[in-house]
Amino acid sequence: MTTITPASAVVLQPTTDAELEQRLAAAQTAAAPLAALRPAERAGLLDAIGDALDAAAGQLIPEAEQETHLPEARLRGELKRTTFQLRLFADLLRDGGYLDARIDHADAEWPMGAPRPDLRRLRVPVGPVVVFAASNFPFAFSVAGGDTASALAAGSPVLLKAHSGHPGLSRLTAEVVTSALREAGAPDGSFALIAGTAAGAAALRDARIKAGAFTGSIPGGRALFDIANSRPEPIPFFGELGSNNPVFVTAAAAGERGAEIAQGFVNSFTMGAGQFCTKPGTLFVPAGSGMVRALRDAALPPAAPLLNERIQSGYTDVLRGLQANPRLATLAEGSDPLADPPSPTLLLTTAADMLSEPHALQTECFGPTAVVVTYDQESELPRLAETFEGQLTATVHGTDTCQVSGLVEVLVRKAGRIVWNEWPTGVSVTHAQQHGGPYPATTAVGSTSVGSAAIERFLRPVAYQGFPQHLLPEALRDDNPLRVPRLMDGRREA
Amino acid sequence: MTTITPASAVVLQPTTDAELEQRLAAAQTAAAPLAALRPAERAGLLDAIGDALDAAAGQLIPEAEQETHLPEARLRGELKRTTFQLRLFADLLRDGGYLDARIDHADAEWPMGAPRPDLRRLRVPVGPVVVFAASNFPFAFSVAGGDTASALAAGSPVLLKAHSGHPGLSRLTAEVVTSALREAGAPDGSFALIAGTAAGAAALRDARIKAGAFTGSIPGGRALFDIANSRPEPIPFFGELGSNNPVFVTAAAAGERGAEIAQGFVNSFTMGAGQFCTKPGTLFVPAGSGMVRALRDAALPPAAPLLNERIQSGYTDVLRGLQANPRLATLAEGSDPLADPPSPTLLLTTAADMLSEPHALQTECFGPTAVVVTYDQESELPRLAETFEGQLTATVHGTDTCQVSGLVEVLVRKAGRIVWNEWPTGVSVTHAQQHGGPYPATTAVGSTSVGSAAIERFLRPVAYQGFPQHLLPEALRDDNPLRVPRLMDGRREA
Repeated sequence: MTTITPASAVVLQPTTDAELEQRLAAAQTAAAPLAALRPAERAGLLDAIGDALDAAAGQLIPEAEQETHLPEARLRGELKRTTFQLRLFADLLRDGGYLDARIDHADAEWPMGAPRPDLRRLRVPVGPVVVFAASNFPFAFSVAGGDTASALAAGSPVLLKAHSGHPGLSRLTAEVVTSALREAGAPDGSFALIAGTAAGAAALRDARIKAGAFTGSIPGGRALFDIANSRPEPIPFFGELGSNNPVFVTAAAAGERGAEIAQGFVNSFTMGAGQFCTKPGTLFVPAGSGMVRALRDAALPPAAPLLNERIQSGYTDVLRGLQANPRLATLAEGSDPLADPPSPTLLLTTAADMLSEPHALQTECFGPTAVVVTYDQESELPRLAETFEGQLTATVHGTDTCQVSGLVEVLVRKAGRIVWNEWPTGVSVTHAQQHGGPYPATTAVGSTSVGSAAIERFLRPVAYQGFPQHLLPEALRDDNPLRVPRLMDGRREA
Repeated sequence: MTTITPASAVVLQPTTDAELEQRLAAAQTAAAPLAALRPAERAGLLDAIGDALDAAAGQLIPEAEQETHLPEARLRGELKRTTFQLRLFADLLRDGGYLDARIDHADAEWPMGAPRPDLRRLRVPVGPVVVFAASNFPFAFSVAGGDTASALAAGSPVLLKAHSGHPGLSRLTAEVVTSALREAGAPDGSFALIAGTAAGAAALRDARIKAGAFTGSIPGGRALFDIANSRPEPIPFFGELGSNNPVFVTAAAAGERGAEIAQGFVNSFTMGAGQFCTKPGTLFVPAGSGMVRALRDAALPPAAPLLNERIQSGYTDVLRGLQANPRLATLAEGSDPLADPPSPTLLLTTAADMLSEPHALQTECFGPTAVVVTYDQESELPRLAETFEGQLTATVHGTDTCQVSGLVEVLVRKAGRIVWNEWPTGVSVTHAQQHGGPYPATTAVGSTSVGSAAIERFLRPVAYQGFPQHLLPEALRDDNPLRVPRLMDGRREA
């Protein structure tokens, strides 16, 4: 049974230099034994964390409600998603495919012109990582969220830099995680919480840390990215930064179900008070299609409190800038868009204005605001899509007869996930998920921070040449005791 | 039939700004049609390049001999390796496994707590890339080498920055590549040569370029890495920089076959006049085992010319520094280690000295020099291994009864390829190959520049959510017309 410090007693002080040194040393010490665990043993650790979080829901949820202003139902759903995610990575470990194991037997007749040695390759953990938690998902992208789950799954110890937006919840969650790991037999130092901007940056600079992961703002993420890359030994930094998530509505779709799309869009951009990295920030609709009126008439939800004062003030700053832009008019708004809590706002512009000033009009506004853009011809859409920087998502609402392959071709270059006739908010945790796109959506263009492929961020391949069986990792031995799927001389093993 | 400019007429002028702009624009234009080709169609392009290079061997080999001082047999072998490599990537495309295609069907009961949408994911090309050729492999790591082959295989147009060490060969090879691509129907702009340091850096800074690849020195590679990461939109930079490639000999191995190991080491560190990134630069041998005498008695090959004057002067500078180090004594040398051409040199030190000053004694010396280190106890080896930075390779010579798992555990953290009772030189092109390790061996720790996995550098994943069949890439359609291997709802398709 896990014992947790009562929430009322929780204080999260900035980590001191001495504490950080102790945690870095412990993480480094944990790296070898954590890596040496069989995948199924690490799976047991993840399951134990999931079970402990579920068991602690009664303490975690109220603390989260108090610190984040998010409603209980949302938080319960997010906790469920978080424990599901831990168990999905556990299943991935038991399957073994994530190792990408490959065996090429020695071949004296290898047509390269020189004999091929016996080469066997698999993925090993990168070593200790530092994870920077996000504010907007206090469970799923925080202490025990996807980055932590995928790094521990990979076998990399985690230093978790808590987000200042929910310090009490961070500490409670970390206590659940550390005691679950301890009880399940994980090496000491496999996981530790750190707090404070300085400690986070210092950890990222430390030579013992081998990768970083982050979810948050473009300026904050870029600063950390620059630290990671300017080290004497640069390390990979997986930052998930900003995204506008544009949505394109064809004339046929507007004609067929304009009101439904309008309401769907309002529901999506106001979901979670607009505080999702996948919030659709721009909607392109055909001029004269009735979509503008449908959007004006759509039911806006009531004002909802933002996560914290910093986000509230950042939101109103950006919104004031948009409201002051002469290219933007107000299309719909609630009682007071700039109040605390803010009511939702829809702004309106034209395709010509968007082409004139794309950067300003596409500024990410983290809260319940979106921009509607009217266009005249569908043939303009690819050019409008080209004005966007890298995106997490891009969405098309069309019909089966729409000629949108040119638009989709542009969007595939711009975004990590392309959505058809659905909404980008609500990122499912699956094997085929891709939550990451070209910069600034992500700092590491080929990576995802959601879904089972997120584990790849914390692994690196190693090849063994000419090794005797007893010195090989089990997954590369001839008898394959773990039944790991392998690529054998270029062919997938049956 | 390919027509090539006679070598005598070849001049490779630095690319002007106007020429660079034209080539960047052409590469960008080529990106969409090159990406849109079916994998098997791109395979045809790679085969065409391979066939054209084979057909042009009679012109390419003499030009390479003249510019690189490398012997004909070596160059013929390297050309064979190069065309084999192109065909291996062609086979990889026909197989389709490189797409990492995944399909998760919609699932209303997905245990995450929210219905799972239909999600389908595959890898797409990153877009145009710039490749910086190396000097020491005028075919295999140059114009039509592994970086070019893997980028074109991925579907990314290539701007190839020629190495100044073999300008005529670079131009000849580029003519063969471009005419083969043209005749095989590749989009214009799929490949172009550029020349000059300034043009290379300008290309890397250009917003149309989406990744860089490089093989060369640590300072040169770091400078380019910094350019790639300081762009407004940072891009991945796959640099393969320096490596010392240490070799550890156990007492049992020394006792069993000391003389054979000594001669094998000499052959390996002097192969190609020591100008391989996998040259073993340090050999750890048990003190008092007779290995030092065996190394002194091993047959050193004669002096061989280095690739060019710049490498010759860089080599003698580093060697003079090592010779002046009081911790290093001369163990064996040919007639004149500092002459042009230089004869091979073996230097000698102790484990205690290596622990005192590892950085200086592990300086990469690009040419026929290596350092022999005597140790007293095998139990010292893990600590000695810890003194190394990231490596391409690390090698152990042992016997089946040696207790080396602690050493191997350290080496797996330090290197991309661990070799047992063989030598690191001679990097086989296979599926299980890993040519890349932690920095400074590689700037992107999870990447390889040799072997079929090298294609992953130039791909990024994209997920399609809720898409109708006719808008999906063929590899993600229900009927799987290309017979691509896929992960279906988390399971590998039979």
